[in-house]
Amino acid sequence: MTTSSASAPKRGPYAKSKQRRENIVIAAHEVFAEHGYKGGSLQVVADRVGMSQTSLLHYFPSKSALLLAVLNWRDTVTGDGGSRSPEESLASAVIRQARFNETVPGVVELYTVLCAESLTAKHPGRDYFTQRYEGLRRSYSRSFTALAREGRLRSGVDPERAAASLIALWDGIQTQWLMDPDSVDMAQCLQDYLDFLILPE
Amino acid sequence: MTTSSASAPKRGPYAKSKQRRENIVIAAHEVFAEHGYKGGSLQVVADRVGMSQTSLLHYFPSKSALLLAVLNWRDTVTGDGGSRSPEESLASAVIRQARFNETVPGVVELYTVLCAESLTAKHPGRDYFTQRYEGLRRSYSRSFTALAREGRLRSGVDPERAAASLIALWDGIQTQWLMDPDSVDMAQCLQDYLDFLILPE
Repeated sequence: MTTSSASAPKRGPYAKSKQRRENIVIAAHEVFAEHGYKGGSLQVVADRVGMSQTSLLHYFPSKSALLLAVLNWRDTVTGDGGSRSPEESLASAVIRQARFNETVPGVVELYTVLCAESLTAKHPGRDYFTQRYEGLRRSYSRSFTALAREGRLRSGVDPERAAASLIALWDGIQTQWLMDPDSVDMAQCLQDYLDFLILPE
Repeated sequence: MTTSSASAPKRGPYAKSKQRRENIVIAAHEVFAEHGYKGGSLQVVADRVGMSQTSLLHYFPSKSALLLAVLNWRDTVTGDGGSRSPEESLASAVIRQARFNETVPGVVELYTVLCAESLTAKHPGRDYFTQRYEGLRRSYSRSFTALAREGRLRSGVDPERAAASLIALWDGIQTQWLMDPDSVDMAQCLQDYLDFLILPE
């Protein structure tokens, strides 16, 4: 976020409404992470922000609209699917993100629970996750292809399968970590795999 | 299953009861795979087997008891967590299982959905999945250690992390495959990883 001056934020109706929306999204994030989307009730979200369900529906017209707001908010918080500077290597960006994720188990849980739940019938998060995987596979695949051009991808590695596998390993190790945080070192497992794929400069 | 003779099965009260239990478990499997455990209702399961909810509860005293029966039944169907013959290599057993899983998307979906859902508050499947991961990590870790003793584990590979990573990659690639079956070749991604870890004889 950038601001044009360091002065205190205005507290007009717009700022208040924006703050309320964010409070609702943060509460919904907690509730969906704890109970899943289907198991999480709008009433519980409304209770957490001290609002009636009717007032809440003034900000988000449906539970599915709230879900999408939560997913997009999550992307902002984690920087996920987002940018790395042109100077940062793929491996460094992955490990940095993995280490960050260790500090926000609730955010990782939300993602893991909703992603799997979105496989169930008529789930409103399905398109979000399908597109997210497509985008991530494309992005990593491009990075591996670029490394191959520099002669830094291990011989025989297929960029597309490596992209899908890296995402898969990351998702799966997060699940094991959420089940039992002491059982696995997420970042080290990812580092092992990246060390295999990518040759040193 | 073994039978002492090839004669038609007896249709006494015990056999009928056993058959009903199995029908309930199969219906519950479908319902939980489609809607998750929390979203799947006992009434829908009862409807699918043409039984009242009260009669169903005579066979399984609670929804959570039914969940555990479904998870155990799944293990029987997939042979998961189960045996490989001493002659079969780890890699061959993994690829065989992965190819089999491609033929039973509903079973894979049930596992993926319930596993993630078990991370949510007070989920009755949590212990099952925690123990399953512990057992699988131990088993694969032992196999990698045995390969290391034969000089067939790639230098620098840590057996415990490789075990966790293999399971993680497998889980994660299944999720991507369920989202979009044409987007990934599950068995080939696993084969790539095993080819990296394990040196040829």
